Amino acid sequence: MVEAVHASTAGEPVSAVGVGAPGPLDHLGGVIHEAPNLPGFIEVAVARDMSARLGVPVFLDRDVFVAALAEATFGAARGVRDWVYITISTGIGGAIVTDGKLLRGVSGTAGEIGHVPIDPNGPRCGCGNIGDIEALAGGANIAKHYGVASAAEVFAAWRRGDERARGIVERAQRALGDMGVLLVNLLNPKRIVVGGGIATGEPEFVFGAMRTAVRERAFTVPGAAVEIVPAALGDDVGLVGSALMARERVAGRQPLG
Amino acid sequence: MVEAVHASTAGEPVSAVGVGAPGPLDHLGGVIHEAPNLPGFIEVAVARDMSARLGVPVFLDRDVFVAALAEATFGAARGVRDWVYITISTGIGGAIVTDGKLLRGVSGTAGEIGHVPIDPNGPRCGCGNIGDIEALAGGANIAKHYGVASAAEVFAAWRRGDERARGIVERAQRALGDMGVLLVNLLNPKRIVVGGGIATGEPEFVFGAMRTAVRERAFTVPGAAVEIVPAALGDDVGLVGSALMARERVAGRQPLG
Repeated sequence: MVEAVHASTAGEPVSAVGVGAPGPLDHLGGVIHEAPNLPGFIEVAVARDMSARLGVPVFLDRDVFVAALAEATFGAARGVRDWVYITISTGIGGAIVTDGKLLRGVSGTAGEIGHVPIDPNGPRCGCGNIGDIEALAGGANIAKHYGVASAAEVFAAWRRGDERARGIVERAQRALGDMGVLLVNLLNPKRIVVGGGIATGEPEFVFGAMRTAVRERAFTVPGAAVEIVPAALGDDVGLVGSALMARERVAGRQPLG
Repeated sequence: MVEAVHASTAGEPVSAVGVGAPGPLDHLGGVIHEAPNLPGFIEVAVARDMSARLGVPVFLDRDVFVAALAEATFGAARGVRDWVYITISTGIGGAIVTDGKLLRGVSGTAGEIGHVPIDPNGPRCGCGNIGDIEALAGGANIAKHYGVASAAEVFAAWRRGDERARGIVERAQRALGDMGVLLVNLLNPKRIVVGGGIATGEPEFVFGAMRTAVRERAFTVPGAAVEIVPAALGDDVGLVGSALMARERVAGRQPLG
């Protein structure tokens, strides 16, 4: 990472560096407690170690939170104070913003919408949960249920009329619809901003499922108040958000805090 | 209501009145938009009308929110800034408090945890949703599924070993467990305070289901951080909370705001 920062700056002065990483982590202390996809990466003081090598302050926060900061600043959530950011990709994650502030929870782990159980008869998730939203509608799980390497292959088979693909895709649509109803009835947001590879690649699958379920099954008042919209910043959302986060924190501000 | 206020004060001076009511309502304007169990009770300006009759300011808020205020002030949530209040009674409702502030949402309807779908094969709820937590574990629905007038009869039959009661009670336990996992993974609260007639009358049913599911299926970090505890104020929680709410608002403060 240190080499990458040096290479990418091409000699330009750098005043601070922001790092977005999957949780759980301590964003103030700059320590990643555990990285689920990097075995042995336990209690690593990323901010301190990188800062010592780079000679500038380094700030750490969760990937989904810096993405939400980017969407709030330059993207689809500008000017909105009560909203939710959702990413639907290999996995499913979220960030809840209430009255302009990020809901972090008492240990900083809040927002794990992918790991909310919604089907007692659903498949087991990698997290140990049963029938949670990610087990049913996360890209990696959609691919795994069909026995292929990528969710794109399952969507292609579904378009060809493949019965088994249809079952998997319809079950995932149901899960995303339930997620929409959950968010609307529980949090009453003004906007739900949805990004990630599957939201970008299969917009009708994602937005159709969520909007239809909210219209049919959520309460009328919050259902009419919500807009379910695509994220605006695409693949760069993490980079933009990490830079924004570092800019705010080097100035002594806590973004969305 | 006006007569009841006069009768209950027994001539003592009253400086303000607080009213807790089911939503959706406009707490600042003092208007109940709709009372689901009172047909024709639409857009009623409760605060203005009662204030005109009583000659003192009248303040309105949602029943579950004034209950949460009471538990935060005198009850099981004293000193806690990130927590959730849940009532499990005829229906199931909730209030989310984050960093000491009530999460109201953009229309003031947030917290409807009872109307979160968690079983696509579950029964239909009065709200139109399918397989939501209240459809499976609300007292009125537990009674209805068994064909009796009260949930207490179903719990009694379950204790006698009745098979049909067992199916209904186990399904409700599963729903309450899923609710616990949902709250812990999505909101990462320090405490979940659970009140209402069923939580009081059947504590092992409620707390056993929630604690076991959180231990077995929630993420480790937020699962270890949460305490799931009984509400402290019993049946008077709404009265205490309404009075507290009026006392704060007559002084120009927004409680939990």
